[in-house]
Amino acid sequence: MRIVPTSDQECKELLGRVSLGRLACALDNQPYVVPVAFSYEPGRIYVFSTVGKKIEWMRQNPKVCLQVDEIGNRSHWTSVVINGIYLELQEPQYSAEKRRARELLGESAQWWIAPMAERREQVSDLSIEPVFFRIDIESMSGLRGIPEA
Amino acid sequence: MRIVPTSDQECKELLGRVSLGRLACALDNQPYVVPVAFSYEPGRIYVFSTVGKKIEWMRQNPKVCLQVDEIGNRSHWTSVVINGIYLELQEPQYSAEKRRARELLGESAQWWIAPMAERREQVSDLSIEPVFFRIDIESMSGLRGIPEA
Repeated sequence: MRIVPTSDQECKELLGRVSLGRLACALDNQPYVVPVAFSYEPGRIYVFSTVGKKIEWMRQNPKVCLQVDEIGNRSHWTSVVINGIYLELQEPQYSAEKRRARELLGESAQWWIAPMAERREQVSDLSIEPVFFRIDIESMSGLRGIPEA
Repeated sequence: MRIVPTSDQECKELLGRVSLGRLACALDNQPYVVPVAFSYEPGRIYVFSTVGKKIEWMRQNPKVCLQVDEIGNRSHWTSVVINGIYLELQEPQYSAEKRRARELLGESAQWWIAPMAERREQVSDLSIEPVFFRIDIESMSGLRGIPEA
């Protein structure tokens, strides 16, 4: 296997194909990372989540890092890392963009609503409510493992 | 689907089965996340890596977060999040434990050595050298998605 950097185009193509990533945020230099469903558009990433630790942290520190990969096997994989800034799509300022995010995330978003509502009842925490946010991409880079010729 | 917390035992079992995770570190409140191969032992995680951005960052700020999951489908998944402290297995103090980590990581570690050496030549960066480190687990929690009965 050889490890080579991916082109900008390859990064974008991966982000178009894959819809599950790992999102890291940090508070007081403690990192935190969770899986998220996302949708990519040039320059930005849309994510749907519930209020909780990561949202509370990103509201305080909007610097985030999203890692997305396709791992076929040990000698055939691509991993892209994005640094970006969290922006919550709040009403009424971002109503239109929130609708757009909901559309893009489509099925993923719809699909989470029932389990989230149930969990909200279980833990009696009304703060478990859907949040849509955007990550403005500041930088992006990737590495690819390819089999030896 | 319902979302339920996993027991401590379920977290441990997942860590025993899975060997790929996503490791987040942070510097100046900028998070960074990359995929890593790991091996779990009670109370600790062993990881093999190259020197590079994440190692430099963890040397300065040892607070890390490791996320590990098994995602079967949308209504059948488990995700575990570990907070821990980075400890580099440096010679001579940690020679014995470094051998143990190398053994545990076995094939994964061996397998990376050639591509790493090659990449070190490509980028003329002698600092791309193998590093073994340990994450001392401070806390661990997980969530599981299960289909409705």
